[in-house]
Amino acid sequence: MVLRKAKHTIQEFALIRAIERRFARGASRLVRGIGDDAAVIAASPPMWWHLTTDLLAEGVHFDLNTASPKSVGYRAAMANLSDIAAMGAVPRYLLTSLAIPKTLKSAHIYELYEGLMKACRLHGVRLIGGDTSASKAGLFLSITLIGTTAARRALFRHGAHVGDRIYVTGTLGDSLAGLQLLTGGKTPRSTRRKRARLSQSQRHFLVNRHLHPTARLAEGQWLNNARLATAAIDLSDGLSGDLRHICEESRVGAELDLGKIPISTACRAYAERHRLQPAQLALTGGEDYELLFTVPSKKQSTIERQARARGYRVTCIGTIRPHRFGIQMTSSDGTRRPIPMTSYEHFR
Amino acid sequence: MVLRKAKHTIQEFALIRAIERRFARGASRLVRGIGDDAAVIAASPPMWWHLTTDLLAEGVHFDLNTASPKSVGYRAAMANLSDIAAMGAVPRYLLTSLAIPKTLKSAHIYELYEGLMKACRLHGVRLIGGDTSASKAGLFLSITLIGTTAARRALFRHGAHVGDRIYVTGTLGDSLAGLQLLTGGKTPRSTRRKRARLSQSQRHFLVNRHLHPTARLAEGQWLNNARLATAAIDLSDGLSGDLRHICEESRVGAELDLGKIPISTACRAYAERHRLQPAQLALTGGEDYELLFTVPSKKQSTIERQARARGYRVTCIGTIRPHRFGIQMTSSDGTRRPIPMTSYEHFR
Repeated sequence: MVLRKAKHTIQEFALIRAIERRFARGASRLVRGIGDDAAVIAASPPMWWHLTTDLLAEGVHFDLNTASPKSVGYRAAMANLSDIAAMGAVPRYLLTSLAIPKTLKSAHIYELYEGLMKACRLHGVRLIGGDTSASKAGLFLSITLIGTTAARRALFRHGAHVGDRIYVTGTLGDSLAGLQLLTGGKTPRSTRRKRARLSQSQRHFLVNRHLHPTARLAEGQWLNNARLATAAIDLSDGLSGDLRHICEESRVGAELDLGKIPISTACRAYAERHRLQPAQLALTGGEDYELLFTVPSKKQSTIERQARARGYRVTCIGTIRPHRFGIQMTSSDGTRRPIPMTSYEHFR
Repeated sequence: MVLRKAKHTIQEFALIRAIERRFARGASRLVRGIGDDAAVIAASPPMWWHLTTDLLAEGVHFDLNTASPKSVGYRAAMANLSDIAAMGAVPRYLLTSLAIPKTLKSAHIYELYEGLMKACRLHGVRLIGGDTSASKAGLFLSITLIGTTAARRALFRHGAHVGDRIYVTGTLGDSLAGLQLLTGGKTPRSTRRKRARLSQSQRHFLVNRHLHPTARLAEGQWLNNARLATAAIDLSDGLSGDLRHICEESRVGAELDLGKIPISTACRAYAERHRLQPAQLALTGGEDYELLFTVPSKKQSTIERQARARGYRVTCIGTIRPHRFGIQMTSSDGTRRPIPMTSYEHFR
């Protein structure tokens, strides 16, 4: 039986501590950050604390042969920020742990932190703690993110009611299209030359949507503070899978109008060139990090007016139905069928 | 560039969620546990939140060939509970993430959670969230533990003053002796038969101290609430390394009286049989999870009286000296020399 803390097995750990201290300055409510047995936060007004954690494994969640350490760090932070956005919370503090293989250069570890902190800085999040250890096989990255809302004021997955309208922010499917562009895509050889190439700006848009996703924090806080949404989730597993989570937690069904799913011009062009249904990219493509939320039908005009005023893109894509209805989608030709169970197929 | 959430790549994940939900019931201040984008905690009285996180890697921190999954889980939780003990805090909530290789059976994952929750139940800690993913190589376990104290009331590493007496709880070196017994030890062949064998109960005591360490939560809360300690740390890296942390953070030196380090009868017998210095086991052996803390000299009689009344074992082992003194140890023969820089040699 062997279980130990291995805080000092890699020479670079002193460097990592230095990096962390460098990135961890400031924070008003922070009593004690890195350098003690635990980070300490002062909490006084009545509030709710939101805690989310993710463990990312090399070869499963990211591939350092094709991804820069900086982008791995950035996307890891953004995935957690997106969870906090879906609660309608303000992100505050980050704890991050790394298990580092001997083969990884300390410059790469620095770049990984740079990416993490770039995402955090965008949203005023402070690094307050973590742990580092050796790894026998591959890089592992664990992130815990803490956010706050006022007490009794948060968005959950379980509040959707029959008759509520289903909304999403932004456009869907871009991230999967961007990923396929980066990894060589799935174009059958025969079709490659017959169809128009994507423009450079379209390629750039899609790849950037994959590499630099944006957690919808402002939108989440707006929906929460204005009491407009009855339920919310972030789209990390694809519309199909994440809508299912809302339905399961709220014990309802849902009807999606496929033709209304917001698709970017670039994604539509990509789908056309690759003979794909754009809606299919949205249903099965993960990591868009847009918000999926439900709104009482009487608040539809309010939400659309406020969104326009704030410059947020929100689109109504369906309606919450009774549980027995299941989860179905209606095509533009009026045919209705169940949404397949498949979720985003993650890296294999 | 590939970075994704892989929450659904392993069939057992549904099972894991079920396991987590089973273990995650209750918790008064808990608004929302597993099943949403983040766990939510209601915080209202002015208090301090203590957050600690650890990432444990198979082959580095534990070896599933020699350790049962249950003991891996138990010890992982205890290592984090010990950090919370060193802050003088009450442990409250746990988030745990696993990256699981395909080769690991779901029964083993269940056992791992059993071990985790056994340690948590002992101290009223609730599992409130986490993440699961596939792993290409080995099991990785990330734990985040949250504890609380009253506002402006906690033990840090940085409060030690010149003249303070240095104390430890319990006995030191047992865990390393227990580990060496489990892994075959370091006895030179020639000496094995010349010396008395350890008794069965002595072996059992040492192995159990390694396999089932006890985080000193009651002792930490007592030291904090009674305002007796000026600084504290838990002994996870060995007395030598952890005393160094106190000295660095407090900008002081220290003088240890080697003869006063509390050594159990079993550890003394083990050291004698293996021709080791017992103090050496204490200085370099990690994972005792006892508390090391400093006390103003005028409070010495108070602390010793209160400890006796409560049945806590505390031992004065030295004195805080000025920074220029460095960190030195005095042997029973009166010779004084610097404490070597070596820390606990973790699993290689």
